[in-house]
Amino acid sequence: MKARAAALDDADPLAALRDRFALPAGVVYLDGNSLGALPRHVPDRVASAVQTEWGEHLITAWNRDGWVDLPVRTGERIAALIGAAPGTVRVTDSTSVNLFKVLSAALSLKGNRVTVVSDSGNFPTDLYVAHGLERAHPGVTLKVVAPEAVAVAVDEGVDVLMLTEVDYRTGRRHDMAALTARAHERGALVIWDLAHSAGALAVDLEGVRADFAVGCGYKFLNGGPGAPAFYYIAERHQAAVDPLLAGWFGHAAPFAFETAFRPAEGADRLRVGTPPVLSMVALDAALDIFDGLDMGAVQAKGRALTDFFIACVDPFAAELGLELASPRDPAARGSHVSLRHEQAYPVMQALIAAGVIGDMRAPDILRFGFAPLYVGFSDVLSAAGTLETILRQESWDRPEFHARKVVT
Amino acid sequence: MKARAAALDDADPLAALRDRFALPAGVVYLDGNSLGALPRHVPDRVASAVQTEWGEHLITAWNRDGWVDLPVRTGERIAALIGAAPGTVRVTDSTSVNLFKVLSAALSLKGNRVTVVSDSGNFPTDLYVAHGLERAHPGVTLKVVAPEAVAVAVDEGVDVLMLTEVDYRTGRRHDMAALTARAHERGALVIWDLAHSAGALAVDLEGVRADFAVGCGYKFLNGGPGAPAFYYIAERHQAAVDPLLAGWFGHAAPFAFETAFRPAEGADRLRVGTPPVLSMVALDAALDIFDGLDMGAVQAKGRALTDFFIACVDPFAAELGLELASPRDPAARGSHVSLRHEQAYPVMQALIAAGVIGDMRAPDILRFGFAPLYVGFSDVLSAAGTLETILRQESWDRPEFHARKVVT
Repeated sequence: MKARAAALDDADPLAALRDRFALPAGVVYLDGNSLGALPRHVPDRVASAVQTEWGEHLITAWNRDGWVDLPVRTGERIAALIGAAPGTVRVTDSTSVNLFKVLSAALSLKGNRVTVVSDSGNFPTDLYVAHGLERAHPGVTLKVVAPEAVAVAVDEGVDVLMLTEVDYRTGRRHDMAALTARAHERGALVIWDLAHSAGALAVDLEGVRADFAVGCGYKFLNGGPGAPAFYYIAERHQAAVDPLLAGWFGHAAPFAFETAFRPAEGADRLRVGTPPVLSMVALDAALDIFDGLDMGAVQAKGRALTDFFIACVDPFAAELGLELASPRDPAARGSHVSLRHEQAYPVMQALIAAGVIGDMRAPDILRFGFAPLYVGFSDVLSAAGTLETILRQESWDRPEFHARKVVT
Repeated sequence: MKARAAALDDADPLAALRDRFALPAGVVYLDGNSLGALPRHVPDRVASAVQTEWGEHLITAWNRDGWVDLPVRTGERIAALIGAAPGTVRVTDSTSVNLFKVLSAALSLKGNRVTVVSDSGNFPTDLYVAHGLERAHPGVTLKVVAPEAVAVAVDEGVDVLMLTEVDYRTGRRHDMAALTARAHERGALVIWDLAHSAGALAVDLEGVRADFAVGCGYKFLNGGPGAPAFYYIAERHQAAVDPLLAGWFGHAAPFAFETAFRPAEGADRLRVGTPPVLSMVALDAALDIFDGLDMGAVQAKGRALTDFFIACVDPFAAELGLELASPRDPAARGSHVSLRHEQAYPVMQALIAAGVIGDMRAPDILRFGFAPLYVGFSDVLSAAGTLETILRQESWDRPEFHARKVVT
């Protein structure tokens, strides 16, 4: 396997990108699907935003340093990575807040009695957002089905289909094109959450004719902890959206300080308040790494990495109590692989202590994310080897690995 | 006046705090009510969060570096500055989004037919937030009256009174205690926006028995551009609030990843998504300057600064086309002074070019903020002198000062 890993690394057209990240020595980082690694050039950009822009330019930095354009500029850059047309994507707020905005927009477009279909593999916050709107609006009914039952639920009747492309636990990937088309045939609107897609997969929002989408800035886009998120509104819906969550940055003239709300043209109308500039600057800088990158090549490497991880783990998995929780077909999964193990929590703590950083999702999932920009095939082999050693020696069974932390 | 300014500076108990800010040489910064100045120690704290916490600790920083506690920790620190009880204030999202959360909470507590009273001196985004909820909910009626007509409107019938303490244009300050009591007598709930209050005035939320509040992290709290905002929910309302905008950080167990929403205990239930950590770290660091500070002394200095500015401007104001737009009574205004001038835009551009940074609010307001932590009385005298010179020489009347910028 060592020779195969080396050969795959040698043939990797994206291998050189790894040097653009500041990864600590001795660590195999397989949690870029939760927090992307730090690009080397980002600290200087953030320091300059703090010391020069904020410290010296003060309020004039809004114009002088282009702070005022950040949500649009970063939005257009992300649009190019997810197959979205110019003018459809903006960066601001968190993924949850953005989902609230696009879901409430979709509800308002569908009238008074609306059935929202989602699945139990959706990230919980997406379901909480829908629950919140359902509780407040008697006409809204949320129907949550199993991921494999979504197509049937669509056929049974749906007004708004709200899904996450890649399941945060299993990595199972929905067929965006097929499900969107199927929902459209029933007259429904479709919202895609791209949290685990943007920056890793070759998403094509215009190609599948998505209606709305949201996504995360701090996972595969490497925008830093809690980086602002993005939303997408297809051009054909923009003029019809009357925001429920309306704020001054969604106004046609934010600095005219009019007392009545007049929505901005286009996607900007779903902006709300002042964005967190320092976090936005980090995300904007991080996106530099994607300039000129072919997302097809990024996706292909992700498939090769996850395939190789499964191949490395397969020989010892059953014997050591591991069960593959992700699809074997690389086209049916995202850029992470999940393995079930009865003792997932202490096993992951032991892995982290040994320098292999993944994460754990209750109750029994070991999750390994393979960010195509900075993970290599030798890393994959090394992680699988460490996992085997820990399981074989049962070295996870120490008190310090059982001690619970707040964030798992 | 020069001797008086020097004497006031000598007697200023807060004068030493100025050295804790990195103000550029040759600048009198009078826009801390729009973007607070950079505390000197903040760049190192942000750099450490980027390079060490994000770059080296990666995902483990959520526990190891306390990222997960930031919204609570900074919330408790701000609570101490605004007379709020522990457990009532959290930091997250923007002021607009937080206002949406507390206003929708207040609406849900008041039932199906709700009259919201606000005033035309409120910051526009607050009115937009209310408009958005009004449009979506047929039972909600928003009544916007003149600031001086609020008391009468309360008497005429109100369910939710939503006001900003300090008018962003004129600096006029509402009597929080009197208006809250008056609204409570009518059975109404009261929401206060403390955007221009927190960090400058001696706010006492528990003393006035406010029901909800929101406020801004990037003005007088110096949290950096677009710093996250805060919300307040009085302890007596927390258990009854069922969030319309619900997300995983408002869940009782965010990392249990349950599919059904169970609200967290207390104020946490109005948290939603992942907060922007880098911006939160800057705010948390900036709050260090307030440790042990008496907000009564901060407010007293703000009154003295604004009084002195008015005294400096009074002798030439009428002759040079200036009119005081702020109350003369220091108890009736916040920590900024506004002057009307027909050519406010180019006059402010000329002031900024001359090193006196204030801002302009359409159509005709020159706005000067006096942050008590880093503005001195000699600064005030100098700013007034520069203003007089520019007006007397009409040096504002140059093409470059008329050219419009995006942010005014």
